[in-house]
Amino acid sequence: MRMRTKKHLETRLEKCADLQINDPEEAKGNWNKIFQNNNPVYLEIGCGKGTFIKKNAEMFPGINFVAMEKDRNVIISAMEPIKKENIKNVKFICDNADLLDEYFDENECERIYLNFSDPQPKSGYKKKRLTHEKYLSMYKRILKHGAGIHQKTDNKGFFEFSLNSLADSGFLLKNISLDLHVDNPAESSETNPAENIMTEYEMKFIEMGLPIYRLEAVNNK
Amino acid sequence: MRMRTKKHLETRLEKCADLQINDPEEAKGNWNKIFQNNNPVYLEIGCGKGTFIKKNAEMFPGINFVAMEKDRNVIISAMEPIKKENIKNVKFICDNADLLDEYFDENECERIYLNFSDPQPKSGYKKKRLTHEKYLSMYKRILKHGAGIHQKTDNKGFFEFSLNSLADSGFLLKNISLDLHVDNPAESSETNPAENIMTEYEMKFIEMGLPIYRLEAVNNK
Repeated sequence: MRMRTKKHLETRLEKCADLQINDPEEAKGNWNKIFQNNNPVYLEIGCGKGTFIKKNAEMFPGINFVAMEKDRNVIISAMEPIKKENIKNVKFICDNADLLDEYFDENECERIYLNFSDPQPKSGYKKKRLTHEKYLSMYKRILKHGAGIHQKTDNKGFFEFSLNSLADSGFLLKNISLDLHVDNPAESSETNPAENIMTEYEMKFIEMGLPIYRLEAVNNK
Repeated sequence: MRMRTKKHLETRLEKCADLQINDPEEAKGNWNKIFQNNNPVYLEIGCGKGTFIKKNAEMFPGINFVAMEKDRNVIISAMEPIKKENIKNVKFICDNADLLDEYFDENECERIYLNFSDPQPKSGYKKKRLTHEKYLSMYKRILKHGAGIHQKTDNKGFFEFSLNSLADSGFLLKNISLDLHVDNPAESSETNPAENIMTEYEMKFIEMGLPIYRLEAVNNK
């Protein structure tokens, strides 16, 4: 089912124009100028309707958040609440991650969030997975040394792929959780579920009783 | 339920005396003399009834296998078939892993197998888990640089604990599988299930339709 184009989409996008970076190539190396401060920049690739990024922005006013979402029809739902509440520490890029290193300079990011990214389960589509080495090499460049990727997914196959791909690419794994919302009998994870900020997908999956997989991967370049 | 002591246990153990290392402290640094060759030494901690180690020994005559099992009543089941078939590349230690670095010199091992080790699910028993940092620091010493730990388990909590513990201790993870015996839709793992040698536990779990978790962790000391 294709999503129906939202009513008055163009007008609504126009009203949020100050939140959207139209020429992200020009932002490269200039994100601190755009945000008018020297705070760290965190990036979410695929922000969907933006629940996660909005809560983060409210909880952490000392962080600059850049939210990417390729679908104009979806990004509008993420932008409007930010606009309405006049939240200053979020900017949006309406694009996928393919040109990420045209948009961020080396070491310009201090964290990347991958929340419930498309698992691209078909074998031929491996290169489209956001933890494929093609993307990891870009993340490695734009992330500072010691900065991390935080990933959540409901898809076991994609999580397994991500664990292997990240480890093979030299990222250091930590705080791995195979069932984020269930008390872990092995008590291995330092992750506190109470501090976990949920996405829209995550809330649905939790209601359905499905496990959520989570990891952190530290850039060790 | 406690296992009944096997009939004629002492006599049977006596018959396998040449397979068992009674003073493993004296073997430290001397494993190649014991096996009378310079082949690599692989260690299985907790060999149970020995199906895994026997198949390995038959498939890889160029490897020396040391099998540890703390229970005399169990180790006999592992030793007798090796004795009967006159397999020369397996020796046994009847003990747990607590004094491992008294039994092996630095760099004396080229692989450690942990197959379906006791998950010790109670939080207070964390230190008893065979992937607790207490054990990992011993494994690191006795394993060569670049040598690996191969772990299989049916216990999700223990696997999660192991992933985190190994990563935190500086081991490099690879070939992680969250369901070894099912075709992996993400095709991430290089592990070929067809080449997997099963343990007794594993066969039971497979029959019950339970997933098997597997990882490799490379010593990066």
